[in-house]
Amino acid sequence: MMGLVTTKRGVVMNIAVFGTGMVGRALSAKLVELGHAVTIGTRDVEALLARKESDGMGNPPFAVWQAENTAVQVGTFAEAAAGSELLVNATSGQATLTVLKSAGEKNLNGKVLLDIANPLDFSQGMPPTLSIVNTDSLAEQIQQAFPELKVVKTLNTMSAPVMIDPQAVGDGDHTVFVSGNDAAAKEETAVLLRSFGWEQIVDLGDITTARGTEMLLPIWLRLYGALQTPLFNFKVVQ
Amino acid sequence: MMGLVTTKRGVVMNIAVFGTGMVGRALSAKLVELGHAVTIGTRDVEALLARKESDGMGNPPFAVWQAENTAVQVGTFAEAAAGSELLVNATSGQATLTVLKSAGEKNLNGKVLLDIANPLDFSQGMPPTLSIVNTDSLAEQIQQAFPELKVVKTLNTMSAPVMIDPQAVGDGDHTVFVSGNDAAAKEETAVLLRSFGWEQIVDLGDITTARGTEMLLPIWLRLYGALQTPLFNFKVVQ
Repeated sequence: MMGLVTTKRGVVMNIAVFGTGMVGRALSAKLVELGHAVTIGTRDVEALLARKESDGMGNPPFAVWQAENTAVQVGTFAEAAAGSELLVNATSGQATLTVLKSAGEKNLNGKVLLDIANPLDFSQGMPPTLSIVNTDSLAEQIQQAFPELKVVKTLNTMSAPVMIDPQAVGDGDHTVFVSGNDAAAKEETAVLLRSFGWEQIVDLGDITTARGTEMLLPIWLRLYGALQTPLFNFKVVQ
Repeated sequence: MMGLVTTKRGVVMNIAVFGTGMVGRALSAKLVELGHAVTIGTRDVEALLARKESDGMGNPPFAVWQAENTAVQVGTFAEAAAGSELLVNATSGQATLTVLKSAGEKNLNGKVLLDIANPLDFSQGMPPTLSIVNTDSLAEQIQQAFPELKVVKTLNTMSAPVMIDPQAVGDGDHTVFVSGNDAAAKEETAVLLRSFGWEQIVDLGDITTARGTEMLLPIWLRLYGALQTPLFNFKVVQ
């Protein structure tokens, strides 16, 4: 049993973030700022730190980012998962199931996984399509592959800067969704989201409702093109 | 050339509405209220008017509705299309292409079609899935089948009461999308939308962007379940 420290910001946790791209970096930095202990998980730590070039999305080499974010630990997927009670999936959707297998089922079981990934398929050009869609979702495939994991789909419908700082857009007057089968896991997720500044958290229902949020990506991508900025989000107005 | 009458509400038009369900009725009544001449198109006028039962969605028989909306004319799809300069597709997505074929290409060519339908497939139970999705859309299939028709996808992302009265939700502070290949057709659509009370009209781009709005239906349906009311809409917040 881990010792949990309560601060004025809430419960401090050991958190594994899978994925070293823009989303993984933004979330890791935010979680450290909130007082959590964060380990970023990657396939090959040495290779990651040795890389000198920007990644495919134009992000600077990880080592450059890490030098400015020294509180963030780096480990293999398995090491990051083993030492953490909360898991965040910020890998590309196409890689997710492979990543989770390499993290090891025993390191995942019983824990909450925030699934932020989208099953985007860039192989047919831009804009990407979804490789899982309509009658299934990435979140459901994760839940099915790891029945003891408590998967909560969330934060997959906005850009990284908006995920960690909702006030950056429209004074925070917009919506984040949660989908999952475990009510306590969704409540734990909501506490974390509120610590990021989220005020409008809509629980859509069980994990199958993640089809709905993953299928928001096509209009998100077109709006990104029409508005020429990733700093926007959807609000559910009643 | 038809004589166009300009009122303080804008240009009065002859409009064909395909579809006799809730959406077709709501739009027809609103268009009449705005001063337009509306003909509802249906497959078999006599059968429609003879029907004594509610339809599959629980709407009262059409004849009951028509008795309270006597200004709305009724005709076959072809008759409605032939006499109109603006067309509205409010049929079920599964029926749309058959309906448009029966309206007759010569009655469609050169005209603007507002496509409000979604390709919902109820055959596998609830919630429905999409029968066209991800790499294609109903709107694109219509545009491809009738190249001379100016298809504008719009109003397919909210319930009928919100379509015709955006102020009914959040003082109208939410978004309607338009997708289409013809800029003038989209502008004509925007004029009509503004006459309904729409203020936030977002042009997503060409007709392929209709994939994005049709793929909003899964989350719309889940929100309908979570919120227990169809009186909501999405707002794009910047």
